[in-house]
Amino acid sequence: MSRHWHHEADVVVVGSGGAALAAASAAVAEGVSVIVLDAAAQPGGTTRRSGGALWIPNNSSMQGLGLTDPRQDALSLMAHLAHPSIYDPASPRFGLSQLAFDLLAAFYDHGSEVIDALTAAGAVDLIILPPLGFGTSPISDPDYHAELPENLAPIGRVLTAISPPGSFEWPGVFLMDGLIAHVLGQGVPILSGHRVVDVVTTGSSGEASGVVAMHEGREVNVRARRGVVFGTGGFAHDPSKVLSFVRGPLFGTGSVPTGSGVFLEVAARLGAALGNLSNGFYFQVALEAALEAAGAISRPDAYVFLPYGDSMIIVDKRGRRIVNEKAMYHERTQSHFVYTNDQYPNLVQIMIWDDPVMQEPTFWPWRGGVPFPGATSPFVITGATLEELSTAIAARLSALQGQRGISAAVGPDVVLSPDFAANLTDTITRFDGFATTGVDLDFHRGETPLEPVWQGPSRGAPNRTMTPFSPVGPYYALLLGAGVLDTCGGPVIGVNGEVLRPDGTAIPGLYGAGNCIASPTGQGYFGAGGTIGPAVVFGYLAGRAAAQRSIGRGPH
Amino acid sequence: MSRHWHHEADVVVVGSGGAALAAASAAVAEGVSVIVLDAAAQPGGTTRRSGGALWIPNNSSMQGLGLTDPRQDALSLMAHLAHPSIYDPASPRFGLSQLAFDLLAAFYDHGSEVIDALTAAGAVDLIILPPLGFGTSPISDPDYHAELPENLAPIGRVLTAISPPGSFEWPGVFLMDGLIAHVLGQGVPILSGHRVVDVVTTGSSGEASGVVAMHEGREVNVRARRGVVFGTGGFAHDPSKVLSFVRGPLFGTGSVPTGSGVFLEVAARLGAALGNLSNGFYFQVALEAALEAAGAISRPDAYVFLPYGDSMIIVDKRGRRIVNEKAMYHERTQSHFVYTNDQYPNLVQIMIWDDPVMQEPTFWPWRGGVPFPGATSPFVITGATLEELSTAIAARLSALQGQRGISAAVGPDVVLSPDFAANLTDTITRFDGFATTGVDLDFHRGETPLEPVWQGPSRGAPNRTMTPFSPVGPYYALLLGAGVLDTCGGPVIGVNGEVLRPDGTAIPGLYGAGNCIASPTGQGYFGAGGTIGPAVVFGYLAGRAAAQRSIGRGPH
Repeated sequence: MSRHWHHEADVVVVGSGGAALAAASAAVAEGVSVIVLDAAAQPGGTTRRSGGALWIPNNSSMQGLGLTDPRQDALSLMAHLAHPSIYDPASPRFGLSQLAFDLLAAFYDHGSEVIDALTAAGAVDLIILPPLGFGTSPISDPDYHAELPENLAPIGRVLTAISPPGSFEWPGVFLMDGLIAHVLGQGVPILSGHRVVDVVTTGSSGEASGVVAMHEGREVNVRARRGVVFGTGGFAHDPSKVLSFVRGPLFGTGSVPTGSGVFLEVAARLGAALGNLSNGFYFQVALEAALEAAGAISRPDAYVFLPYGDSMIIVDKRGRRIVNEKAMYHERTQSHFVYTNDQYPNLVQIMIWDDPVMQEPTFWPWRGGVPFPGATSPFVITGATLEELSTAIAARLSALQGQRGISAAVGPDVVLSPDFAANLTDTITRFDGFATTGVDLDFHRGETPLEPVWQGPSRGAPNRTMTPFSPVGPYYALLLGAGVLDTCGGPVIGVNGEVLRPDGTAIPGLYGAGNCIASPTGQGYFGAGGTIGPAVVFGYLAGRAAAQRSIGRGPH
Repeated sequence: MSRHWHHEADVVVVGSGGAALAAASAAVAEGVSVIVLDAAAQPGGTTRRSGGALWIPNNSSMQGLGLTDPRQDALSLMAHLAHPSIYDPASPRFGLSQLAFDLLAAFYDHGSEVIDALTAAGAVDLIILPPLGFGTSPISDPDYHAELPENLAPIGRVLTAISPPGSFEWPGVFLMDGLIAHVLGQGVPILSGHRVVDVVTTGSSGEASGVVAMHEGREVNVRARRGVVFGTGGFAHDPSKVLSFVRGPLFGTGSVPTGSGVFLEVAARLGAALGNLSNGFYFQVALEAALEAAGAISRPDAYVFLPYGDSMIIVDKRGRRIVNEKAMYHERTQSHFVYTNDQYPNLVQIMIWDDPVMQEPTFWPWRGGVPFPGATSPFVITGATLEELSTAIAARLSALQGQRGISAAVGPDVVLSPDFAANLTDTITRFDGFATTGVDLDFHRGETPLEPVWQGPSRGAPNRTMTPFSPVGPYYALLLGAGVLDTCGGPVIGVNGEVLRPDGTAIPGLYGAGNCIASPTGQGYFGAGGTIGPAVVFGYLAGRAAAQRSIGRGPH
């Protein structure tokens, strides 16, 4: 078949987030021609909406400071977090399959090298994420999972882009604007508004030889002489996929709305094995902000990464605590996924805080839905007493009945129990006792290295994550649901980002990285930048491998 | 391409369980020729290993008794159970997508008709499942979800095959032996030992025109003039798929070991949409029986459908109750799936009972891992006191370290907490109080219509599911893990079992039913026979639709 090619390049990169542009940069570094296609008008993908951090074990910046990150322990930590149900430190490969282990090893072995190459090329300019909180290290705050015995490098793995002084944008903007400028500077066209809908294959091997994109209603064919690299993000904006694939019900996503998850279907049709479909990178959302946006959230106060406040708790619809409120967002959010007695009892949770938290004047950027002093929020519920607050929460839930997010709705089960106010009073009394002793016997709040540091301002002692509630109101509440930065399942890749068939062979010329493929991170979120670090590293490896392919001999 | 066809028929059925043979029967009834291929030596599939029940709403047997099952309420119940996170009785289609709703409606609208047709053909001989327990209805025991307000027909939906008097085989054997004899009697060959590995397509429409099977090391091509119907079961025997798709970690499966889940990959490569991959039909397994069998369990005492006993509790590794022990197995098992603090705290649970339960002489078939009086079990752990029992449990867990099931291993987190024995004593004291008052304030044990009925023998009053523990030993324990009868995700089907593409169009000639497709039952288990009922109904509809297709005109 003779196909008219509107554009052609050695390597065609689909998407323009961190994985995609790392691939483009790697391919350019190999001296081949590259074209980038992206569905959105603004390049940068979901990475440009992010905190711009990259979790890179044993990176050069750490090494430069004399910080060590032994390979075996780092792999053990990653294996634990990626595949906790089968993790076994005493087994070969920690209990993982050969491929799952090899992918983590490739990430460890090539992570620093990739960042160094991108830095040398001028594509990125990264530093170790400086201390943000109330910790003791002058280098950085502790890793998310610093408490695990396998974690021998709790300081230094997190790199970030350097924001201009005084900027209030998230660092992801600067990370991606830098990568975009670099790629454009290398003569790589970024064709915005080009939604790739299919891969063209040739020959009996099914080699990927190009893509079909939709641009302004027309089909645009783009030939790839050496390979196609997808970095197109997950399927979080496809409610039917989220409902039928992901581990728990979700109200919103922070991923770029042009993401459609098309790579899953395209790759499956080409014979790819699929993996990791049940997983995502989770965080809590301000429920009403997610509902307002029909799941496609963007306003900053929708993101509840770190529930704010010392005299603050999160309770269920019966008024009982159900989770360590200071646990990192990915793990904490999974408390919404409990299914029992034919319902999701924790589908909606309620964050409760007192007036001293509300009025706390110390600046702290992560108030996650709690307005800054003097500001207001339509999503904050107020009551002069706990009883009045409870009544107001019940009314708000009632007003939201029937509204829906991505794969969760405010259904008939989402109502306050009649004993909510009474239980809430008891719960606060018990919490106040924990705050006084400093020991949370129920959920161990504040016991990891990071939790007290990222607590933000506090009046609490001996445990700075907990202060007894004020005996007088007003009190405040915010409704919380589960959200996903993006899903991270799709076609299975090998150690160079090559898309694999069920028999382990590669589909020639087809590569992927980031949230559109079965993430090597499994069900884990290794630390700050645990999404973008692996995305950039495997994106780079994929772009390099695609560029190094000899040109296919099939008919075009 | 000219392909040598070793066999040909109008309709080719792949698999030989309930879904497959219902399809074969339906096709025969349309007057077309049929061939059945199955990988196993013994036909009957997973259905032949089952309890042989079929959950069929508004079935003719109910109608004959004057029992009503109003359509709107039945659909509401099914929508609730299938898609609890988005269920909303006040929304159109209860909040479901059009397709999800249409599939449930098709099941309701055609279920009775299908059973009647199979009965008229002599393929099945079913009765309403008679009372088994200690209930009051002379017709049947209550539905699994009789407590839900939408359930207006809690008696009569469950049909079952009639076992010969005195038989100790599970009714699934008789259900399938009847279907097998019927199909063979209609002249349909059942080619055992034929593992289908691919579908042959023809023409630009990608019409399914045959299959490729492996038989004794050779490829066997089987032409399908009208259509191919898959009823090949789920992917529970593929650990990598289970780990990366299913909602929680699993130690074992009761599905037939020849199941490979091949249809997922084959259909995806043909462009099918995939769905429901995160779900399965869950039950608890005796952990050591599952480990002994490397996940492919078969011995009857591995199946813990109903934890036996009145003075019996299930606790976590800290010695605390975590679930209503009498909740039906599908829901109860999901208590293993809780993920928090970087681990699965309930991955392994411990069932504890006392000597009066062990010595209870009243016959009750479902002792699920608890030996019958006079018998012994290698999996039962014994201690003269609770302290000795605790020590013995700890030793047993230690001995199991590193052993693995399908997607779960006995890892370093699976150890008893140092305060296990102390907590267990407190837990039993609290449980004894609940048993005395009859009210389980923590988990509401025994409060559904079915729980007291399927309790089996009991000395408990006022709540027959609970009796205080004997103050003297010996005491017993059994380790429990999560298991799956089978997974129930795969290609998405339409209301006649036709496999659908993401755009909603059908792949011509390709059909599926049962556990190999995205089950219309979503994440629910509607009741006894909630697996086989929908499998048989959609299998029949698929077989009929395939038979009614006009013969394709593409090259063969």
